[in-house]
Amino acid sequence: MFEYLRPNIRAMAGYTPGEQPQDATYLKLNTNESPYPPSPRVFEAIRSALTSDRLRKYPDAIGSDFRRAAGKLLDVDPDCILIGNGSDDILTIVTRAFVPEGGLVVSPSPSYLLYRSLAEIQGASFQNVPYTPDWQLPVPWPIPNAHVTFIANPSSPSGTMVSRSSLERLAHTLRGPMVLDEAYVDFADANGLALVASRKVIVTRSLSKSYALAGIRFGYAVADAAIIRELIKVKDSYNCDVLSLAAATAAIEDQEYLRSTRAQILATRERLTQSLRGLGFDVCESQANFIWCRRADRPVRVIYEELRRRLILVRYMNYDGYGDGLRISVGSDSETDRLLAELRSIL
Amino acid sequence: MFEYLRPNIRAMAGYTPGEQPQDATYLKLNTNESPYPPSPRVFEAIRSALTSDRLRKYPDAIGSDFRRAAGKLLDVDPDCILIGNGSDDILTIVTRAFVPEGGLVVSPSPSYLLYRSLAEIQGASFQNVPYTPDWQLPVPWPIPNAHVTFIANPSSPSGTMVSRSSLERLAHTLRGPMVLDEAYVDFADANGLALVASRKVIVTRSLSKSYALAGIRFGYAVADAAIIRELIKVKDSYNCDVLSLAAATAAIEDQEYLRSTRAQILATRERLTQSLRGLGFDVCESQANFIWCRRADRPVRVIYEELRRRLILVRYMNYDGYGDGLRISVGSDSETDRLLAELRSIL
Repeated sequence: MFEYLRPNIRAMAGYTPGEQPQDATYLKLNTNESPYPPSPRVFEAIRSALTSDRLRKYPDAIGSDFRRAAGKLLDVDPDCILIGNGSDDILTIVTRAFVPEGGLVVSPSPSYLLYRSLAEIQGASFQNVPYTPDWQLPVPWPIPNAHVTFIANPSSPSGTMVSRSSLERLAHTLRGPMVLDEAYVDFADANGLALVASRKVIVTRSLSKSYALAGIRFGYAVADAAIIRELIKVKDSYNCDVLSLAAATAAIEDQEYLRSTRAQILATRERLTQSLRGLGFDVCESQANFIWCRRADRPVRVIYEELRRRLILVRYMNYDGYGDGLRISVGSDSETDRLLAELRSIL
Repeated sequence: MFEYLRPNIRAMAGYTPGEQPQDATYLKLNTNESPYPPSPRVFEAIRSALTSDRLRKYPDAIGSDFRRAAGKLLDVDPDCILIGNGSDDILTIVTRAFVPEGGLVVSPSPSYLLYRSLAEIQGASFQNVPYTPDWQLPVPWPIPNAHVTFIANPSSPSGTMVSRSSLERLAHTLRGPMVLDEAYVDFADANGLALVASRKVIVTRSLSKSYALAGIRFGYAVADAAIIRELIKVKDSYNCDVLSLAAATAAIEDQEYLRSTRAQILATRERLTQSLRGLGFDVCESQANFIWCRRADRPVRVIYEELRRRLILVRYMNYDGYGDGLRISVGSDSETDRLLAELRSIL
């Protein structure tokens, strides 16, 4: 059967997500999970949905309750919302809708490595456009003819953002749609939701990070309602389950809780940034819940390995044509203290 | 942005799943949900997994615990198991792995309509091969060169099965892989798991029907380990959430509970079949948790509509080149009594 696999699938390496050890031995600062629990309302909502009738019946295919809640929160029509089994599901759906075999997917670099994998699965080419040294989009944009252009904003691993006016200019330049991946936007000072009105932009969001719900898999897209109707054709009929839908709806309805955990994470991010600089790291100014750090004087891979030995996981990343660094999630204050203490002892 | 959609997406109608009214007004006999609750162990497992730590962290990407439990149950290596967000997710993954744009997907007809939608999303052609009048696979099989051939066994809407020897012969004839969709197999007298050894067959299963877990979205595939490794490249990294994984693992570990609900459903299926025949319906001999019935003397669409007015949903289906009928899920005994009483009053 192996010989019948599509050659693009056989050839690809596959996306490698960050390590997810299933025991609690490690302090996980490698995949940008929240150090704080989800809103108490999430637990209540899941417990309420935990009935025989809800489990044995199919869920609402389009997630009407979530769409209504998200529409209210974002001040958009619920028909402009697409529910997803994590925002990866949304990115997959968009790729399948717009990118033909032999097509072209483009993203700035370094950025989220999944964009390349999505292109490869689709049998399309992938090209990246290096960020300028200060993490801006080059002008003019050199590859305007992609079938989809993915812009993570804030981006990973840098945590940096480009301005709304840069995004507007890029969307105007592009011949195909622009996907604005706002997985980390709740930690930023601004967002690009208003760009949806241009009808060239699909905004994607995740509940994994800011809402502390990586375990339940929920993301969504905001776009023109006519586009959402087409994306619904591509998604699996029942892509979100009853418990995730209940959890996600409760989570976005508790904005006060989001504000309080966000404030803690932003304060710790600032302290982590300053402390790492004090330890000799070059640290990007982050608008996300992680920081990207490098150093000129010694290889960071060794630091990653030494932290790992001390049961702290951070993400070591090495990008072709750019180089390597450590992406460190912003943990709680005590987790950050432990990280900094170990780093001081290592360095 | 609409103009950048792939033409196959624009052109397709999209799969229409059975109606899922989100209130409890209707007696739902239209989408083959179980009338019985999931195993009590499922509730325990979900409650145990409902911790801050599990919700805020990413789940195990490959579902090791589920794979181990399924491997033990089925007596296969855990590496031969692929977890899916419902078996629709599995069917999607397989299609993306094997079917190129412009490729060919084949299935007997009438059968599960999603197979055509999956082909359309992929930009591939779809052809069907009519079952023989007694619901067997034609010999010789007329289209051996498909990139994927889907065989639902038991099939929907008929509920009938083809024998393992017919499947073996077909797998031998086909040039590409055969996907044996066993969503309903727990209600049947036999299964095709042994065919996986031929390395031409991928077996898919669902927990939606026999395990009463349509709401949590869980399915899986069994195939050669080398194929599973390739399919893992295609799936979303975290396609199953922590609560679904916990629920699914607990469900398959409670085989005694499955046996008891299965026995009830099979007894009711027999009674429903006989009663409908008594009312003048032509009823297929079902190996699933639904029955397919037609009648020569009057149009069944009117019966569907009249049942709907009386708050009972069954599935009216009409297939090109075959005709129409009603697919009725096997409910509890009291639900079946209510259905039969209404049918008697209508006819």
